[in-house]
Amino acid sequence: MTTTPSTTAGTLADPDTPFAVVDVHKALRNIDRLAAKADQLGVTLRPHVKTAKSLDVAALMHGAAPNPVTVSTLAEAEAFADGGYTDISYAVGIDPHKLPRVLALLRRGVTLRVLLDSAEQAAFVAEASRRAGIGIPAQIEIDCDGHRGGLKTDDPALLDIGHTLHDAGCLDGVLTHAGESYFAYSAEERRLAAENERDTAVTAAGKLRAAGLPVATVSVGSTPTAHAAEGLTGVTELRAGNYVFFDLVMAGLGVCRIDDLALSVVVTVIGHRPEYGWIVTDGGWMAMSRDRGTGAQPQDQGYGLVTDLAGRPIPGLVMSAASQEHGTITARDGATLPDLPIGTRLRILPNHACATAAQHRGYHVIDSSRTGTDAPAVQAVWNRVSGW
Amino acid sequence: MTTTPSTTAGTLADPDTPFAVVDVHKALRNIDRLAAKADQLGVTLRPHVKTAKSLDVAALMHGAAPNPVTVSTLAEAEAFADGGYTDISYAVGIDPHKLPRVLALLRRGVTLRVLLDSAEQAAFVAEASRRAGIGIPAQIEIDCDGHRGGLKTDDPALLDIGHTLHDAGCLDGVLTHAGESYFAYSAEERRLAAENERDTAVTAAGKLRAAGLPVATVSVGSTPTAHAAEGLTGVTELRAGNYVFFDLVMAGLGVCRIDDLALSVVVTVIGHRPEYGWIVTDGGWMAMSRDRGTGAQPQDQGYGLVTDLAGRPIPGLVMSAASQEHGTITARDGATLPDLPIGTRLRILPNHACATAAQHRGYHVIDSSRTGTDAPAVQAVWNRVSGW
Repeated sequence: MTTTPSTTAGTLADPDTPFAVVDVHKALRNIDRLAAKADQLGVTLRPHVKTAKSLDVAALMHGAAPNPVTVSTLAEAEAFADGGYTDISYAVGIDPHKLPRVLALLRRGVTLRVLLDSAEQAAFVAEASRRAGIGIPAQIEIDCDGHRGGLKTDDPALLDIGHTLHDAGCLDGVLTHAGESYFAYSAEERRLAAENERDTAVTAAGKLRAAGLPVATVSVGSTPTAHAAEGLTGVTELRAGNYVFFDLVMAGLGVCRIDDLALSVVVTVIGHRPEYGWIVTDGGWMAMSRDRGTGAQPQDQGYGLVTDLAGRPIPGLVMSAASQEHGTITARDGATLPDLPIGTRLRILPNHACATAAQHRGYHVIDSSRTGTDAPAVQAVWNRVSGW
Repeated sequence: MTTTPSTTAGTLADPDTPFAVVDVHKALRNIDRLAAKADQLGVTLRPHVKTAKSLDVAALMHGAAPNPVTVSTLAEAEAFADGGYTDISYAVGIDPHKLPRVLALLRRGVTLRVLLDSAEQAAFVAEASRRAGIGIPAQIEIDCDGHRGGLKTDDPALLDIGHTLHDAGCLDGVLTHAGESYFAYSAEERRLAAENERDTAVTAAGKLRAAGLPVATVSVGSTPTAHAAEGLTGVTELRAGNYVFFDLVMAGLGVCRIDDLALSVVVTVIGHRPEYGWIVTDGGWMAMSRDRGTGAQPQDQGYGLVTDLAGRPIPGLVMSAASQEHGTITARDGATLPDLPIGTRLRILPNHACATAAQHRGYHVIDSSRTGTDAPAVQAVWNRVSGW
């Protein structure tokens, strides 16, 4: 994992705005927190790299030796394979059309697991494996909370799929994701969601095993449940992605503090409309994404909260509106709009780190433990993987 | 303008999903429609390339000879300058930090106009011009509807700014944008918005001229008002961007028909949850963007409407939910969910073409006038400009 040194920028005051910033101090703190939790629970952590999509960020998690990762696209799988990763789970239901790229990675010596929840997909995977003479490792997606895909544990298709996969040398295990935990606002709700996620995965694995089918992997995880789980008996691995950066949605749930947010976007003040109470910036939805995740939370944070360039929150300021290349900052809760002249740089903390990061080609990297200055030094510029 | 021939794909059935598709037949029809309108109104059309961000799409507008364009980022300005464009307006209020890149383009022989609405910005532009010995052409942004930036026509700063710019050899003219026309649901409202946009720009130009200040450019435009304007006396140029692709927001306003939408995203069915009435695809918000523009319209279209791979609408189907790499399609209005097996390809028509296009690195190009097949042939793959 190589860190690309910064070639363009001395400090966050230098590059043209908008651009994305990663604070490695906070990212490492977030990484250490979940690593300690996984250690305590006695499970392997398999980070989902869909949030940062960066070999450099993954190196923060893994150090020198590439370790298990989860990906959301084959483009990520291929980029991480190029970076030396050999243990990759592709956690989106497999489109049979994509199996040639899966087989190409397997032929390179990468253990790439696919996910499926239907007899049709299992038949495609089994057939492709037989033709290629390579068992494509496959996990059966289990639905624990009605959030998205997966089979219920009592679905009779579970065993049929298990047999189809096993007969073709493909059966790896089961995977579930407590997506509804993104709406769990109390620690107790998240604890129960984690318990349910575990129970569901372990029940499904038990049903397969009771039918004589070997289950190697029992995979669970989401950022809220990973932090809330109190016991993961029977589970072999824990997945989470957002936790490396966190965001306002996670802070709104109580999974992290605002101070833990490691991703932000630097913008510049380009206008004022005092008659409306607006400060206009050059960071619109192109820079922040259209994600309004906190809009469904008790405290709506608009398009994001505002800090100064050093990362100190400016109380009462919110990015309340966005067009393509314009952001509107307003004051709320009786706060006074500060005097922020044209050219002032600010940082916006996003609703949803996965969506905001995706609007950028890379990250300017700072380390907030090393600087007390108003314009943090840029340590490096890291690239992101994009596309599919 | 070179068209990159397709090297990867025979038809829309071939590339891995999700990917963006441009139908040149519909794009050309949309382009011809507004070109005819501009001719009829007797104004220059200066297309905003922020929607497609593609030299190839711009070539559809301009043919062999590059013509006036509007851009939303300096990255677009630089890419279009590289493509031979020499008449470019950068229609986002200028950040003084970006003036060195503006000057670099001017030194290359590109007439790049900047936009501003404050005495502070005018002073920065005048000072940079004097230092460089190059008058940076600048337009004064005028607010016609309280949508975003700009000066009201009665703001005393208008003349001060005009003098500052003129004294430095920078004053080019005035620009206004009827952003509130995106909420004008009747032809009459849009006609009135266009009239107000024109009146406001012409009034501002008149005030400057009455003070002895020369005004070359009087620029107006938005996709809804450009199509609704009945007379543009006093206006020199018309801007619009979205019109090349159109989208569900524009169709919801009545500016176009669903059949005019030239941009879509090809996705593949990867799952079924009959108990919830869901078809799951591999196109989530990463492919569609998080834009929910129709959510504020009388007919909410979710994350998009669904067609088959040939582009024929599938009545009653809507993409009702999205996660990062998953889309959920449901039936509404009593429609029956059709049988769409795993691997079936569909196309999703987006809420907001600018936002959806931005999620992709390029476009697979088809021509719906040339094919009657179920899987349209891919004529080319066109790149997009990204970043800032």
